[in-house]
Amino acid sequence: MVLEKINSPKDVKTLNLDEMKILADEIRQGILDKVNAIGGHMGPNLGIVETTIAMHYVFNSPEDKFVFDVSHQCYPHKMLTGRKEGFTNPNEYLTYTGYTAPEESDHDLFKVGHTSTSVSLATGVAKARDLKGEKYNVIALIGDGSLSGGEAYEGLNNASTLNSNIIIIVNDNDISIAENHGGLYDNLKNLRESNGNAENNFFKSLGFDYYFVKDGNDTQSLINTFKKVKDIDHPVIVHIYTEKGLGLKPAVENKEAYHWALPGVLNPQSDNNTTQEESYTSITLDYISKKTKEDKTVIAVNAGTPGVFGYTPEYRNSLGNQYTDVGIAEEHAVAYSSALAKQGAKPILSFMSSFVQRTYDQLSQDLALNNSPITMLIYWGGISGADATHLCTFDVPLISNIPNIVYLAPVNKEEYLAMLDWSINQTKYPVAIRVPMTNLVSVGIKDTTDYSILNKFKIINKGENVAIIGAGNFFQLGEKVKALLNTKLGINATLINPVYLTGIDEEMLNNLKSNHKLVITLEDNVLNGGFGEKISRYYGNSEMKVLNFGADKEFTDRISLSDLYEKYHLTPDLIVDDIAKTLNLLEYSK
Amino acid sequence: MVLEKINSPKDVKTLNLDEMKILADEIRQGILDKVNAIGGHMGPNLGIVETTIAMHYVFNSPEDKFVFDVSHQCYPHKMLTGRKEGFTNPNEYLTYTGYTAPEESDHDLFKVGHTSTSVSLATGVAKARDLKGEKYNVIALIGDGSLSGGEAYEGLNNASTLNSNIIIIVNDNDISIAENHGGLYDNLKNLRESNGNAENNFFKSLGFDYYFVKDGNDTQSLINTFKKVKDIDHPVIVHIYTEKGLGLKPAVENKEAYHWALPGVLNPQSDNNTTQEESYTSITLDYISKKTKEDKTVIAVNAGTPGVFGYTPEYRNSLGNQYTDVGIAEEHAVAYSSALAKQGAKPILSFMSSFVQRTYDQLSQDLALNNSPITMLIYWGGISGADATHLCTFDVPLISNIPNIVYLAPVNKEEYLAMLDWSINQTKYPVAIRVPMTNLVSVGIKDTTDYSILNKFKIINKGENVAIIGAGNFFQLGEKVKALLNTKLGINATLINPVYLTGIDEEMLNNLKSNHKLVITLEDNVLNGGFGEKISRYYGNSEMKVLNFGADKEFTDRISLSDLYEKYHLTPDLIVDDIAKTLNLLEYSK
Repeated sequence: MVLEKINSPKDVKTLNLDEMKILADEIRQGILDKVNAIGGHMGPNLGIVETTIAMHYVFNSPEDKFVFDVSHQCYPHKMLTGRKEGFTNPNEYLTYTGYTAPEESDHDLFKVGHTSTSVSLATGVAKARDLKGEKYNVIALIGDGSLSGGEAYEGLNNASTLNSNIIIIVNDNDISIAENHGGLYDNLKNLRESNGNAENNFFKSLGFDYYFVKDGNDTQSLINTFKKVKDIDHPVIVHIYTEKGLGLKPAVENKEAYHWALPGVLNPQSDNNTTQEESYTSITLDYISKKTKEDKTVIAVNAGTPGVFGYTPEYRNSLGNQYTDVGIAEEHAVAYSSALAKQGAKPILSFMSSFVQRTYDQLSQDLALNNSPITMLIYWGGISGADATHLCTFDVPLISNIPNIVYLAPVNKEEYLAMLDWSINQTKYPVAIRVPMTNLVSVGIKDTTDYSILNKFKIINKGENVAIIGAGNFFQLGEKVKALLNTKLGINATLINPVYLTGIDEEMLNNLKSNHKLVITLEDNVLNGGFGEKISRYYGNSEMKVLNFGADKEFTDRISLSDLYEKYHLTPDLIVDDIAKTLNLLEYSK
Repeated sequence: MVLEKINSPKDVKTLNLDEMKILADEIRQGILDKVNAIGGHMGPNLGIVETTIAMHYVFNSPEDKFVFDVSHQCYPHKMLTGRKEGFTNPNEYLTYTGYTAPEESDHDLFKVGHTSTSVSLATGVAKARDLKGEKYNVIALIGDGSLSGGEAYEGLNNASTLNSNIIIIVNDNDISIAENHGGLYDNLKNLRESNGNAENNFFKSLGFDYYFVKDGNDTQSLINTFKKVKDIDHPVIVHIYTEKGLGLKPAVENKEAYHWALPGVLNPQSDNNTTQEESYTSITLDYISKKTKEDKTVIAVNAGTPGVFGYTPEYRNSLGNQYTDVGIAEEHAVAYSSALAKQGAKPILSFMSSFVQRTYDQLSQDLALNNSPITMLIYWGGISGADATHLCTFDVPLISNIPNIVYLAPVNKEEYLAMLDWSINQTKYPVAIRVPMTNLVSVGIKDTTDYSILNKFKIINKGENVAIIGAGNFFQLGEKVKALLNTKLGINATLINPVYLTGIDEEMLNNLKSNHKLVITLEDNVLNGGFGEKISRYYGNSEMKVLNFGADKEFTDRISLSDLYEKYHLTPDLIVDDIAKTLNLLEYSK
């Protein structure tokens, strides 16, 4: 066993090639064991093992600085930098994050989880070094998939003008999460096929020196090339060709499925369990299938994360030219969809909440200012126990404070489908829909609401004294609070589904004043800049009390949902307690 | 006179080359006259006259679709599409915007004012055409400066994969607003110098067919090339080399100064009027000069708009390697600055408010999540009579709802300088400062506040009954409201400078409850998601009334500031009236 001797990168430097080969096998075993136990990024880490060993063999981390793009390929790096127990000891599987984390180790510079940032960050590191008159290597490791993001290009365009050391390793494995999209990928293919000698080299066109490593899983080749570029005095690209998923046959054969794997991936259950339960994802897929068949101008668009939406390769094929994956290029996705809509097509653009953050200005300028009638679906929006890099609580303040956009929060299947229909058929507004994160709820009655009457809230139960406004995912929490208010305090509360996150129903809110003392708002996102504050503002000049429930403005990092709900007072008990306190205060103050 | 006969693009098609030459001169005269009268984009429009004539001669707008990047070079296009009176008749100078505007003409597809969007928009137009089975040319016109923006690259990378007509004219005039920055510009230079035949053609590397026009101000050459690519069945780049400012010698000789010109540009006053008044811009320049000299790790960073901050060419040179203009690449600017700070340098990153929108995810992920101690200066933040494309009212909701960032709103010179000092010397937080839009106010007393005690508001005058929280630009409005409250209603109001836009002073707000009935907030930005709503939320469970004053969530378009202030109740009289109403309501309800 070689890995057991490796406590820091120094120990890697003492190994011979045979030992490094054994080390690579052991690292792969650690990746397989851990991902099989708790899930994680499988393919990207299996592919980058030899590269990481060679990096630590040739360079001197932490004096030399490694910047990992997305950092979902940092498992081997963690194993070589004092954190191997996180992979070899099941009790320690949860000790370390799946991404680089400066709080864990000096070998990690940045907390990273979104794509396409490494070249910019590395350029800043290199410039700081130069300003301080220091000497060390700065190495960015970026995958080919990340190269489609605008930030990566902005970084490359600037990195190449540094008159000093910066080494950008482009890990080309011919696939992003799904297949790559864009003209650049033909260029990478040409470069691979020409052993780096193709005409019109993208990297050289941006001013980089350029090296190609044909076998990016051959440690010796990597070491040779890294030695050549070590201490180089100008910007250089090292383009390496690796095999994603290497070491696990199914992961090589089905790179998309094994990019991120669920626990138990090595022992998949038989496929008999195919009684697909209906979910908001499945009904969306059915809906898009149906609509694209009915109308040749309906088109599904996404930015490099088809799996989030259940867009399997078969499904994508079934949509034909009515499907565009723009690659990891969220800005383009929005502008492209805006123009599609402006010219009479009907784009359904889907984002995971955390990634819609990557395109604020396009939402504002390309889309909202032009009032293009697209349908935008926001997935996974809500408080979660996710890594700090993948929180999905900011989409509401982000989207809902942009003029013109209508942001809808359905609470059941029928409402969601009616909103989809309305959105696709109308031509007046950009519409976003926050796809519920809850299990599918069906009320069994077709929703005939006219959603063109904007900002009209729905009163579900008329009561008095307390009104509960439960938005989207938290409508059902509102139902529970209503029930508990009745049981505990004998209050027959009013329950409201606000439907719209982008406006308020002034008439209804005003009417509530006649027989309510308190309005509470429930929203599954950060409170700051969110929905509830708009209700608080509205009632500011009145006697109405308002309590806003939602998440604090903070980056939480793998905190369990139950702990977060406790902290934010998002359980029926805690909410009813807060209501009781506020009402008692009212009694007291009389 | 040829122009007088041109009422639509059809009329351009009847002209011979001599007439087109005359037309070009007349268009230039229109640009000069109008810009000299009311200000506007001078250089970009002077440079693109022949291109526009040739485009309308060869293509058939509006059947063929033109998409202008930034659209600050659309004056000639407007003159040829029925809007020439906006340039020839001084009474009509204000009739049309300086950007493309679909509400003005069918020849304008999109409302555009931010850079780097045209290729993505054109790709969407082309795809909609293909889905609908229609046939027409889609032409994007993008300047070289816009090519440094990530959205442009994302667009190019996707446009090249269209299997149909899209024509991207790259207007290369060898300068953006200031000089261009980035490796791409060496490639453009190589292409110019090789008559389009350089090795490693950036556009070809992305999969485009490619044409070069050496003299982009020669109408015949342009027509010849446009005819070649008209109705082409695949993506093509037409790289044209033009002279920015052509037709006005000083504009050619000093392209940066004449990019956007003030009224009277053709008859500049003598330079005797050099008694430079102190302004927030001038003291910032002085501050950066001093700090960069004292500390070699202080570095000024911006993204392609040095003029906004008063960074003249001489000033830039004076900073040497302690200055980085990354070009129009706001995302890179943030990530780069974050990394600079993380490695111990002290970046001062400046943005115009409207453009900080282009980098939300980097503010969140690259910067805030990593808690990098940069200093970010936001200029021009505030309500204005600007075009809808250049509003500066959204930076507060954008920045202030991201965790970790400290957003400060100084109200006078001493406070601003103290904040700068604190920010540069601390290492715990990313700090943004909203540089005041007001005339410089000096209180003459050094500010010794410890800004590391976050979210501590300052009570400027202790009073009772009503508390006025006047943020940033609107602190002085708060002073006026306080005076008028006294005169009109006999109220001795409390006046508060909140200092922080990213948090609230709960202790102070709680103390106000003892002898105040009403708190009003004044903020120079949209209310939705802004500062005041956080105050409203805080007081939701109490008897305190709150009124939030600020801008509505809307895209205003060249509405005068006085009209906006009237509409939003942002004058002392209107505010005092609202206060009186709210207090009377209180009386009434007792």
